[in-house]
Amino acid sequence: MELKLYVDRLSQPSRAVLIFCKANEIEFEEVSIKLGKLQHRSPEYAEINPMKQVPAIVHGDFKLSESHAILIYLASAFPGVADHWYPADVHKRAKIHSVLDWHHSNLRRGSLGYHFNTGIALAFGLPLDPKAAAEGEKLLSASLATIESLWLEGDGPFLLGNSQPSIADIALVCEIMQLEFPLPYWFRLRMRRIVTVFWPDTREF
Amino acid sequence: MELKLYVDRLSQPSRAVLIFCKANEIEFEEVSIKLGKLQHRSPEYAEINPMKQVPAIVHGDFKLSESHAILIYLASAFPGVADHWYPADVHKRAKIHSVLDWHHSNLRRGSLGYHFNTGIALAFGLPLDPKAAAEGEKLLSASLATIESLWLEGDGPFLLGNSQPSIADIALVCEIMQLEFPLPYWFRLRMRRIVTVFWPDTREF
Repeated sequence: MELKLYVDRLSQPSRAVLIFCKANEIEFEEVSIKLGKLQHRSPEYAEINPMKQVPAIVHGDFKLSESHAILIYLASAFPGVADHWYPADVHKRAKIHSVLDWHHSNLRRGSLGYHFNTGIALAFGLPLDPKAAAEGEKLLSASLATIESLWLEGDGPFLLGNSQPSIADIALVCEIMQLEFPLPYWFRLRMRRIVTVFWPDTREF
Repeated sequence: MELKLYVDRLSQPSRAVLIFCKANEIEFEEVSIKLGKLQHRSPEYAEINPMKQVPAIVHGDFKLSESHAILIYLASAFPGVADHWYPADVHKRAKIHSVLDWHHSNLRRGSLGYHFNTGIALAFGLPLDPKAAAEGEKLLSASLATIESLWLEGDGPFLLGNSQPSIADIALVCEIMQLEFPLPYWFRLRMRRIVTVFWPDTREF
């Protein structure tokens, strides 16, 4: 049964899904949906994902959107994915869900607010909003601090003190790496430290 | 093993967790954390949930925050919860995750932006922000339209066309019911229709 990933590699959640498949040797066909060319808004793509966002997947006749849901699905539906990515243990799994939920309303929201209001808005013909950008950066900064002080607590180098990465590590590291270019030097330094802890090889992707 | 729910009934996600436990006859002790009295910011509560938000649970020595993660945990860890709440089927479960993820960045975000900037901000000594309130209301309105046009598609009265509710139904209905009081009449009418479809008995809770 064929797996198609509808992605734009410029999108953090798209990269998370791509990296997960590569790391787990899941075969897929990559279908490029260029956000910059508004291909995600086409009627053809709405048939794949009515929410008009990337990533989305089609696996046989099953369609799914939302990157976290996709990561969980891939980890559950494909045999051979090691347990550390999405543990069967109900407590370990619950903690991963908690990080993923936190991501939505903290790191992701800050990142999106910052990037949109410092650049992406222009691509959609909207003005930049310095106040919203500042709020995004503030939430981002607080989120990075939380990752360092809480989510990376413990002995292991990965989230929740784990010795091996989970799907939450992939989701967060892709978000963090997006910050590399446009942010101030001190922010990049901090980010680099976290990325190295998280996922030393991700830069090579 | 005792289950403690740390909640404020004024909080939508808190109510979702409470309703789920009641609907499934899961025994719990309700610990009231009054947001209006800033009890969620106390050092004592930070020991329960370092994110300083409600809801949180303690089950034995296991602590968990984030309402969606809590709902999934409760549905998985407690025997006797009917399958429709969080189906074992990997495809049905994936769709529920997708709705829950969508909730974070759409309905929840719009709701939070609206409520915060039309009232809650004052409780924290911050000014109301009419522009942010308008943006929240716009996202809310779009989210309600998406619920009607996409998530409620199908034959059944519940999300994803199901004949019985899932944890996603509880999460969304609690968010929607929060809108009942402060919104314009047309908005309330629309909301009422959705709530009735979702969960006819929730008002009695």
